[in-house]
Amino acid sequence: MIKSTILGVTLASVLISGQAGAVELPDPASVRTDRLQLMQGFPPAADRQITQASFMRPYPNPRWSFHHAREFFPSRRVARGNEGVYVLPRAEGQEQRIAGLTFTGPEGREMTFQQYLDETYVDGVLIMQHGKVLFEQYQPGVDESEPHILWSVTKSVVGLLATQLIAEGALDPEALVTSYVPELAESGWKGATVQQVLNMTADIDYSEVYADRNSDVVKYSLAAGMAPAPQDYAGARDLYSYLPTIGAGPDEHGVAFRYRTTHTEVLGWILRRVTGLSTAALIEQRIWSKLGAEQDGYMLLDAKGAEWAGAGFNVTLRDLARFAEMVRLEGKFNGHQVVSPEVIRTIREGADREAFKAAGRDYQPGYSYRNQWWISHNPDGAFEAMGVHGQMIHINPAVGLVMVRLSSHPIASSGQTMPYTIPAMAALADLLR
Amino acid sequence: MIKSTILGVTLASVLISGQAGAVELPDPASVRTDRLQLMQGFPPAADRQITQASFMRPYPNPRWSFHHAREFFPSRRVARGNEGVYVLPRAEGQEQRIAGLTFTGPEGREMTFQQYLDETYVDGVLIMQHGKVLFEQYQPGVDESEPHILWSVTKSVVGLLATQLIAEGALDPEALVTSYVPELAESGWKGATVQQVLNMTADIDYSEVYADRNSDVVKYSLAAGMAPAPQDYAGARDLYSYLPTIGAGPDEHGVAFRYRTTHTEVLGWILRRVTGLSTAALIEQRIWSKLGAEQDGYMLLDAKGAEWAGAGFNVTLRDLARFAEMVRLEGKFNGHQVVSPEVIRTIREGADREAFKAAGRDYQPGYSYRNQWWISHNPDGAFEAMGVHGQMIHINPAVGLVMVRLSSHPIASSGQTMPYTIPAMAALADLLR
Repeated sequence: MIKSTILGVTLASVLISGQAGAVELPDPASVRTDRLQLMQGFPPAADRQITQASFMRPYPNPRWSFHHAREFFPSRRVARGNEGVYVLPRAEGQEQRIAGLTFTGPEGREMTFQQYLDETYVDGVLIMQHGKVLFEQYQPGVDESEPHILWSVTKSVVGLLATQLIAEGALDPEALVTSYVPELAESGWKGATVQQVLNMTADIDYSEVYADRNSDVVKYSLAAGMAPAPQDYAGARDLYSYLPTIGAGPDEHGVAFRYRTTHTEVLGWILRRVTGLSTAALIEQRIWSKLGAEQDGYMLLDAKGAEWAGAGFNVTLRDLARFAEMVRLEGKFNGHQVVSPEVIRTIREGADREAFKAAGRDYQPGYSYRNQWWISHNPDGAFEAMGVHGQMIHINPAVGLVMVRLSSHPIASSGQTMPYTIPAMAALADLLR
Repeated sequence: MIKSTILGVTLASVLISGQAGAVELPDPASVRTDRLQLMQGFPPAADRQITQASFMRPYPNPRWSFHHAREFFPSRRVARGNEGVYVLPRAEGQEQRIAGLTFTGPEGREMTFQQYLDETYVDGVLIMQHGKVLFEQYQPGVDESEPHILWSVTKSVVGLLATQLIAEGALDPEALVTSYVPELAESGWKGATVQQVLNMTADIDYSEVYADRNSDVVKYSLAAGMAPAPQDYAGARDLYSYLPTIGAGPDEHGVAFRYRTTHTEVLGWILRRVTGLSTAALIEQRIWSKLGAEQDGYMLLDAKGAEWAGAGFNVTLRDLARFAEMVRLEGKFNGHQVVSPEVIRTIREGADREAFKAAGRDYQPGYSYRNQWWISHNPDGAFEAMGVHGQMIHINPAVGLVMVRLSSHPIASSGQTMPYTIPAMAALADLLR
């Protein structure tokens, strides 16, 4: 046990072995939102103040900022529309059974499902089977009605819409990216197809390593306006200026999967050109207004009003569950055929599992990445949407299971949570089978 | 007629005599939102692009930006809550009668009510009598479900809440400002009472002239984050840092009315200290969640998360009408006693009409300013909330009349619209009497 101090609280820290080697993490109980007093007071005490510059760090700022993102950035509404709320039915008496479920976690450690949630810094989790809510839990201090940033779960929403537009014939997956966005003619996307962007096998000169401050993802963040630019910053300050500056990668397009958020930003650009709608308006018209959502969601924006198509969607946990259940039901939900069944079947087919290995994501063995979704290829046909810091949609069609979770894990990489989530989801499926 | 060019459109301009002398205004039809193509395209054409820096100018940017303010600034939700929508009842067949109503405008000009609306660049207007909607109209291109910035109508919402807290004994109007906010001990508010801030008779070293770029209102705007600071800017970048830097005025407190937005920022600070709630949460809990509103509203924020208490509330036209009707009904609305009747009676009493004259607002003859509301002292007992660029709530208790209007007039000062609004409201009252 190592002692460290964050915000004046002495934390009993635990050592957890992750992909990046042993990292030190604070005791989750010591960073509970209701105890931290972040952004409380007028003004807040200096060490409780969060600004746009400290939205991501130091920890534990994300415990508050991740469910108040609009208070730090420009945002565009994704309205729930005028339909009544689709109330999620509930199956009572399942909470204890699920919380107490035991499974073998990383390094052979026996743990309960509740430990899994706590130790992965969950802000909210909701589990449904066959359309009924079995389990719903929030970190104390998190308002269930407040949208939470989805990070890269956003990509899967955008990818779903792209797949729907392909099914309708409005978007050609074999067309060149540059046929939709000529501005990218001299960029690394030259010669890449829409499908290669969807599957992230287009090769570009761009690295995305969250723990490396010299990674290109930092340039992306500054262009998107996710953090204030340093005084001497001379790079792009909006996404439409930034994306064309990304050069070609060393490899051929279509060979290797490498996870890059900028692919989804390009996809978002393509969809705007195809539909004439902003990403927020597209999600609203095609999906969010049909789910019987409880709350409006929103997209975060860059300095010129372009959405962060790869990272910026914010919704409530329950509304995310409605979305996930719609996907599980092949688009049929709340009296609407929201997307066509073909869309979900296409995604579930997955992509090349050999190509996936290039990304070195050993914590997702056997996976592939198709149209911005993670396909497990396990016997139950589970597939997933994932975002940094522990955001997730997990859908297990064989068991009729949906889990959505929102969280504020201190470490961005999904390599922190997946070694827990994969065995936890397997145990949960077996319990409910 | 003078020709000028804005956004490549040749405008037939009209000369209108305002308080600041003759100013040139564009033909309203030439700056209709649906024709301007502002922020259309991905990216928008350079002359259709609006950013935080161009939110206010050049014109006609406000025709789009004023109903998309959250897309340029951080914001905090003011939720409508979980109650059903209170559907406003309607009295049919009144539109033509009102649109065609004629009255004598400035300089003896005969004009119709519709001309009044068009020539004051209205984005939306809603008129009710005895609780029924008689007239509702939007500028083409304005989405009725999208919140619009209220500017200083915000002050009246905050003033209403202050008056309610006084009625409850939670806030002492005779107490010193500094007893609630000791940070202001060395500022111009030293020695001023809460009531003097409410009535804007505390005297501070601060000028608010919208047409003067050297006015203190520019410093306020930069501190609030309403515009990006110039590179060489060394002043305060948040409201809690800025307000204590404002010095004492030359006069005694309590003598002369002078309209200063910073008074309301101080009032907002006081209410946060008294209630422990952010301004957004206070409005939500006390008012917005009880109105049966259709949409969530929101408050704009400075860089450290403090609301623009004097300017930053955004709601839809219809929700503003619900609020105004609640005020007309002395707080009783939608099955709630939202504020106590005493609160509305206190406001309607008005304040010292002699003190009001110090502000030189000749376009509001006979008025006084009480608790952040404009009191006409006319025979019908009309009282108002007003914001720059033509925002307004007009309540005529004798006729049971409420008018709310949202607009994007090219000139900030209410001296542009009031010479039309006062005779227009008088004619409307006579029509409905």
